[in-house]
Amino acid sequence: MITNEALQRRLDTRTKPQGSLGALETLAMRIGLALDTDTPVLRAPQMFVFAGDHGIATDGVSAFPQAVTAQMLLNYLQGGAAINVLARQHGMTLNVVDAGVATDIGEHPSLLARAVGRSTRNFRIEPAMTPEQCARALDTGKTLAKDALRQGSNALMFGEMGIGNTASASMLLHRRTGWTLEECVGRGTGLDDVGLARKRERLAAASARCPRKLAPIETIAEFGGFELAMITGALLATADEKCIAVIDGFAVSVSAMLAIEIDPRVRSRCIFSHCSAEHAHRQLLAHLDVKPLLDLGMRLGEGTGAAMAWPIIDAAARLMTEMASFESAGVDDRAS
Amino acid sequence: MITNEALQRRLDTRTKPQGSLGALETLAMRIGLALDTDTPVLRAPQMFVFAGDHGIATDGVSAFPQAVTAQMLLNYLQGGAAINVLARQHGMTLNVVDAGVATDIGEHPSLLARAVGRSTRNFRIEPAMTPEQCARALDTGKTLAKDALRQGSNALMFGEMGIGNTASASMLLHRRTGWTLEECVGRGTGLDDVGLARKRERLAAASARCPRKLAPIETIAEFGGFELAMITGALLATADEKCIAVIDGFAVSVSAMLAIEIDPRVRSRCIFSHCSAEHAHRQLLAHLDVKPLLDLGMRLGEGTGAAMAWPIIDAAARLMTEMASFESAGVDDRAS
Repeated sequence: MITNEALQRRLDTRTKPQGSLGALETLAMRIGLALDTDTPVLRAPQMFVFAGDHGIATDGVSAFPQAVTAQMLLNYLQGGAAINVLARQHGMTLNVVDAGVATDIGEHPSLLARAVGRSTRNFRIEPAMTPEQCARALDTGKTLAKDALRQGSNALMFGEMGIGNTASASMLLHRRTGWTLEECVGRGTGLDDVGLARKRERLAAASARCPRKLAPIETIAEFGGFELAMITGALLATADEKCIAVIDGFAVSVSAMLAIEIDPRVRSRCIFSHCSAEHAHRQLLAHLDVKPLLDLGMRLGEGTGAAMAWPIIDAAARLMTEMASFESAGVDDRAS
Repeated sequence: MITNEALQRRLDTRTKPQGSLGALETLAMRIGLALDTDTPVLRAPQMFVFAGDHGIATDGVSAFPQAVTAQMLLNYLQGGAAINVLARQHGMTLNVVDAGVATDIGEHPSLLARAVGRSTRNFRIEPAMTPEQCARALDTGKTLAKDALRQGSNALMFGEMGIGNTASASMLLHRRTGWTLEECVGRGTGLDDVGLARKRERLAAASARCPRKLAPIETIAEFGGFELAMITGALLATADEKCIAVIDGFAVSVSAMLAIEIDPRVRSRCIFSHCSAEHAHRQLLAHLDVKPLLDLGMRLGEGTGAAMAWPIIDAAARLMTEMASFESAGVDDRAS
């Protein structure tokens, strides 16, 4: 097992003033620990975008209609969305997963059709999923991650798309942390003040419907989404593997929080890419005691924040692995 | 001429909630204006690392001996430094320029030998350069930039290396802004408290040697460095061109401040990549009224911050140019 000391020694003998790479040095050490080597190489980066629909969307908790989830899924398959542009730029494989979109969009060579249902149910009225659906969604995520790792990747990235899913993520956050709905709920894709008030009011009603204390997986079944559950499942699969998992924005961070609660070993695999503009994200990142790499005011989802951070993560590994040492380069390492 | 309105319209019709790309949208608009198109494509990115030595280094203002400048220049030519790793990662051409290193390291196929002198003189005792040397350094930078642009690049990046050059950059900042030396001077590559106090004391003596008010170019000749002057010259060459110039850390930002003072049109070409950990950089960026893209606590120089920000800059251009519109993708763009 590689040690922190060995990683620090390698960094400190590279041709640069000690500590001068700042947060990249911390990041390089985390990658070295996750991959168990002081010469980490990130291989075959895989972006997974999970799409799912939410019964709560019919309550008017989003600025966009539910049909947009399926329309955006098609956009991913046609290569026109932001995440397509970024995946092409960075040479990462884009895996588009139908986790449970309301409309069956049919077969497509690039689609991973893994729908657990055609939208969750409206969790203001009834549980979002059955326990069986929840277990299936977690298992599906685990299998997808394990397959990608078995095929040679050691860097998984996760994004999501689903009209209404910040409502679901906010509910999960509210119920796991006990923070108020004012703290947990934000504008998602761009609600105005009236819409935001409605979203909070609907979520308060939903929470009141099921006041009993829930275990993490019960919370997912009660208030979660198929795409969020699959991400939690995929993250659980990384705990035993020599790999990293790049966390996107608010919704994926909530899925990560749940995965860490279920299996604390997941924490060491997670790299938090950015702080989104969605209301509760900064507080959630502080709660998880993590410092994101980027703070660009993005709030698009789809894995776009993770994709933007990918070259930084890759750079940290490459700098540790590829830079010359003072000795090999014949550079003086001493005070004058 | 492309307008802000046309650029905003293009961004707002892409398949994403309006404004959801945050700072990337502002950046995409700046690139569109600089390249005068709403479908910008950044071509053949060129990284220039200018290396030069400083007479003031013999005053003990750095944690490293002067010999390290030439040693690092060789390290760049051998591919072992941080900037080599990042240039390889991002497929950018790395141009290594000897702007005036103390030791002549001889010919090398990858070296641009443009030395204006073998180190500047010690500006605590006498002017760092003659007016002729200063003019030649500015011209050399201009020519290098113009050649790169003529050969098809529209994205130039600038980095520097030179033991003692944060002392020079701090002096330039002090003399152009009137800020105190306490505000302007930092630890560079890693001075301890004693070294920092000595650096400030030597710079106070240097400033006292030449108390008269100086024009921008006179300030460069009096207290500057060959590498810093070349960067200012290169930036001046961008004012008339459809291109962007990516600014690295503290020293390059000081060179940019001078270029903007000499020709305010340079401002619209500059993209400030990161906020370095060097003491005065945050205040300088605020003074220039710019928000850097990254804040990772880096303080290495060499263009490493600019290289780290490059994929973000490239992404902003690609998102604007390559994303589908709501109409072309058949995605609803309306409140539910």
